[in-house]
Amino acid sequence: MNGLLTRYRKGWSLEQAFYTDESVLNAENKSIWSRNWLFAGFDCEIPKSGDYMVYNVLNHSAIIIRDDDGSIYAHHNTCRHRGSVICTEERGNEPNLRCPYHHWVYDKKGSLKNARMMPDEFNKEQFSLFGIHVRVVAGAIFINFSNNPPAFDAEERDLGEYLQPYELSKAKVAYRDSYELDANWKLIGENFRECYHCGPAHIEYCQVVIGANLTEPRDEVVSDQLQSWYKEGLPAGTIENLPGANHFVTRYPLRPGYKSYSLDGQPVAPLMGRHRDYNTGVVGIINYPNFWMDAVSDYLWVMRITPLDARRSRVDLTWLVDGMAEEGRDYDLERLTEFWKITGEQDWRLCENNQRGILSDRYESGPLAPVEKEVMDFHSWYLEKLRTYAAPQTNGQQ
Amino acid sequence: MNGLLTRYRKGWSLEQAFYTDESVLNAENKSIWSRNWLFAGFDCEIPKSGDYMVYNVLNHSAIIIRDDDGSIYAHHNTCRHRGSVICTEERGNEPNLRCPYHHWVYDKKGSLKNARMMPDEFNKEQFSLFGIHVRVVAGAIFINFSNNPPAFDAEERDLGEYLQPYELSKAKVAYRDSYELDANWKLIGENFRECYHCGPAHIEYCQVVIGANLTEPRDEVVSDQLQSWYKEGLPAGTIENLPGANHFVTRYPLRPGYKSYSLDGQPVAPLMGRHRDYNTGVVGIINYPNFWMDAVSDYLWVMRITPLDARRSRVDLTWLVDGMAEEGRDYDLERLTEFWKITGEQDWRLCENNQRGILSDRYESGPLAPVEKEVMDFHSWYLEKLRTYAAPQTNGQQ
Amino acid sequence: MNGLLTRYRKGWSLEQAFYTDESVLNAENKSIWSRNWLFAGFDCEIPKSGDYMVYNVLNHSAIIIRDDDGSIYAHHNTCRHRGSVICTEERGNEPNLRCPYHHWVYDKKGSLKNARMMPDEFNKEQFSLFGIHVRVVAGAIFINFSNNPPAFDAEERDLGEYLQPYELSKAKVAYRDSYELDANWKLIGENFRECYHCGPAHIEYCQVVIGANLTEPRDEVVSDQLQSWYKEGLPAGTIENLPGANHFVTRYPLRPGYKSYSLDGQPVAPLMGRHRDYNTGVVGIINYPNFWMDAVSDYLWVMRITPLDARRSRVDLTWLVDGMAEEGRDYDLERLTEFWKITGEQDWRLCENNQRGILSDRYESGPLAPVEKEVMDFHSWYLEKLRTYAAPQTNGQQ
Repeated sequence: MNGLLTRYRKGWSLEQAFYTDESVLNAENKSIWSRNWLFAGFDCEIPKSGDYMVYNVLNHSAIIIRDDDGSIYAHHNTCRHRGSVICTEERGNEPNLRCPYHHWVYDKKGSLKNARMMPDEFNKEQFSLFGIHVRVVAGAIFINFSNNPPAFDAEERDLGEYLQPYELSKAKVAYRDSYELDANWKLIGENFRECYHCGPAHIEYCQVVIGANLTEPRDEVVSDQLQSWYKEGLPAGTIENLPGANHFVTRYPLRPGYKSYSLDGQPVAPLMGRHRDYNTGVVGIINYPNFWMDAVSDYLWVMRITPLDARRSRVDLTWLVDGMAEEGRDYDLERLTEFWKITGEQDWRLCENNQRGILSDRYESGPLAPVEKEVMDFHSWYLEKLRTYAAPQTNGQQ
Repeated sequence: MNGLLTRYRKGWSLEQAFYTDESVLNAENKSIWSRNWLFAGFDCEIPKSGDYMVYNVLNHSAIIIRDDDGSIYAHHNTCRHRGSVICTEERGNEPNLRCPYHHWVYDKKGSLKNARMMPDEFNKEQFSLFGIHVRVVAGAIFINFSNNPPAFDAEERDLGEYLQPYELSKAKVAYRDSYELDANWKLIGENFRECYHCGPAHIEYCQVVIGANLTEPRDEVVSDQLQSWYKEGLPAGTIENLPGANHFVTRYPLRPGYKSYSLDGQPVAPLMGRHRDYNTGVVGIINYPNFWMDAVSDYLWVMRITPLDARRSRVDLTWLVDGMAEEGRDYDLERLTEFWKITGEQDWRLCENNQRGILSDRYESGPLAPVEKEVMDFHSWYLEKLRTYAAPQTNGQQ
Repeated sequence: MNGLLTRYRKGWSLEQAFYTDESVLNAENKSIWSRNWLFAGFDCEIPKSGDYMVYNVLNHSAIIIRDDDGSIYAHHNTCRHRGSVICTEERGNEPNLRCPYHHWVYDKKGSLKNARMMPDEFNKEQFSLFGIHVRVVAGAIFINFSNNPPAFDAEERDLGEYLQPYELSKAKVAYRDSYELDANWKLIGENFRECYHCGPAHIEYCQVVIGANLTEPRDEVVSDQLQSWYKEGLPAGTIENLPGANHFVTRYPLRPGYKSYSLDGQPVAPLMGRHRDYNTGVVGIINYPNFWMDAVSDYLWVMRITPLDARRSRVDLTWLVDGMAEEGRDYDLERLTEFWKITGEQDWRLCENNQRGILSDRYESGPLAPVEKEVMDFHSWYLEKLRTYAAPQTNGQQ
């Protein structure tokens, strides 16, 4: 690891090993995936008491469950008896968490309530499910596998401000999709941090987002829009690279006359939450390492990235609409989803091509273009985590 | 390995590495799979001269073949010329063992009879197939991959006593089935050594086997039955944990009025062998590591467990009926097999859930219930093998 | 590695590790696959400017492309920007090599012609595609992944002489086929270097090739044919084991009355190139490690062997006919291909059986038959490469 870190050349793509080696993934697990706050889902996905979802991240499996009083808990999905998974499905509803093997029963808070046939001296209180820290930010659920999670205040403040208008706790999942990609998770991250490829690869996206091709002038449009958003009280500045923080938040305009992320630029669903017109542009939020969101006035699209191994990743996509919207009456599912289905699949192919080429013996780090500055920022964030939490420590003597 | 062994806590489930690491499997291969007597099949499966079966165990492949005089031999399935497998199918009949590559020909005893175009000075006697030790116990074939197999006398005596009434050499294979499970082989073993899960998981089984749910009283039934079995001359005591031995043998009753392992408790096939009534209960035999048998008066069900890697196993199931029974006339195949198909598949799911949960970073050994004592005994047997035959040796100085 | 090399016993099959271990494959990659000249394909497969093919070998991916002036170039298939593969398909035609990710554009010689939005000071000349050495030998394209390729003169001279009559640059691909085999690449090589297995395994082949069963007399036929070939000016001597060279070239007769590699021995296509009759026998050429060819007067069959990992290989098969031949009119595709489809599949099965048997714990090197001398020669060639280029170096002191 240390050699990799010291050889890093700022402004160039990372070395091969970062995209191929299990030892790097292990270091990332330690310094990022087991340490950072991770997006798990939305609280509107588990509206009722006992609703739960499972999120698997490398060697962790989390149960996220709604308690009777409405609060949300997360637990490690492994029974304290002989270790069986407790929730075998990705989603469901259970009045309590009962291990399917020997029917040890935990309540939604994770306390062991019943352990059949255990001796009298057995102390149930010592065998609660192992807990996982949870924070719900304006309806987005984040979990943390560490026993001592780092601060999340800046993220909560900024994500919260931009997410509130969508009223996510009352939103509705219109559609979900998942892909397994033959690509290291960072290649997907890099792809979503630059629009250098948008002109060549994303005809549909560039049609809707002014300036995405990096050749059209858009300053005047941006400036006009900012005025109007501020007037409406919508947060609109760009927040990024705060020291120690992991998020990026921005709002940017669609092409004038375009109202949504859709093939024809027209709305595809009713306005979400507190929105009063289709003129709110796009809210883009990233929270490293796994939360990537793009929201327009009528729907919110989110990508959750999860490494499967050093060379494969899973992306879970969710489309949210306003909670009152009804499929068929208020929106057509195909129209709602086609824009990001097309754009996403273009990206998955690019990421897999990128991985294949990096596997070449002759791959060498190459120079980033100036318009890929955010890829470099992503690398800086990433390497800082590795240096701080995964690199072998040396003491002052050496 | 040594750390794992010394950290073991009696009465608790094993540490994660025992169920996940290839290094543990390698130690097991050395101390158990390449050293213990393994169940291969039944002699009634290869009744005629030249009938053979192949059994693959990790990096071993055994041919078990019937010779002209009725005796059974086992050979390593690799040609002494350039190593090709000799028998490419799982079962068959061959007048001799002819390598498909260059047609070197071995007789059923493994002696090289013909090596085409080899020079005059070539000494065929030095190139017999490598032999494997074989013992046939009342019709059940056991093989041993070691050059110096350990004693098998106690097992032969006790298994033989309980198996004889079934007259297995004259029995008939009614059905075979195989499953590949995403579970370490020991999880399957543990599952079959406790009925703590039977109440929650096995409705059908608990219906048929009195007391399987661990809540019904059954002492009176057992005591009555024992009297009657002894009267009929059927062996009925429980034999287990003999020092150095690997077997467990018992006979236990079905629910009064139930006559077989079947959904309605009624017989599903004619009486096997020397049995004269359906009142013989269940004969349960285990011979570690791979032989798990349950037999009722009308059929015998056997499970052969084989590790595929540290996290995957294969189970091969065989249903035997009396040799005179004819499908359609004397038994219905679906009725014969449905009880163990249902019960087995319930168990496969539990074992796979167990493996998934153990893969969690937060899995910890948990306390066994008192009714899981036999799981603890299985661990004792297992750890003794590892300690004796796989742990690195230290000399007195250290 | 060193232990393996010193334990080698001449005239015996190789030890297990040679066919199973990734460490051996890594040594082979260094000493053979990344160092030797490798057959990639035929120039008639890319006749027009911009026609290209991709050949993947372990951690290498080569683009082989025809330039405007007819010359052929090869480049590593990884963009100098962020590493994406440039050609994503196995074959195609492109006016230039444009990376699909950010549209950096290279010409067919590999020079970077356009790098969108890169700064003025960016020097495109430093970012050409990494080149791969190419030699075209009478229409057969060989590439070399090393920066300092070894001599190829003897191969060019001898392969050229035997290939010229086929006029391959004007030939036509009639058919292609590929198989992935569960067998180390050397087992396929060994198989094709001996006919000890032909009698047992290849009825069709032995019908057509006199003496292939190693029992028929064929000296008279060979002697007669040699006279006639020399008279016609066809090269006919056998060339093998030249010091430092990697090729084997020969011409041998079909059974008298047989005119082609076909089930009935009759021609299956028009005469190729400069051939004037069907009496030219078989030209057999091997160029280690991956080129294995058998050509008759009317068609040429070639096998390209490529390791996928230590235990799996890919074979790519190509059938070439005269460039003027038209399917349907001049040849029937099934008749053209069935002989080698049948014979090849017999061999794939043997090779996979061989691998399976070698995986046995009890596999031991076995004695080669005298008629397997060429297998021993193959081993000698192979071990010499490993010893020279892969074995750890020791200095004079040690």
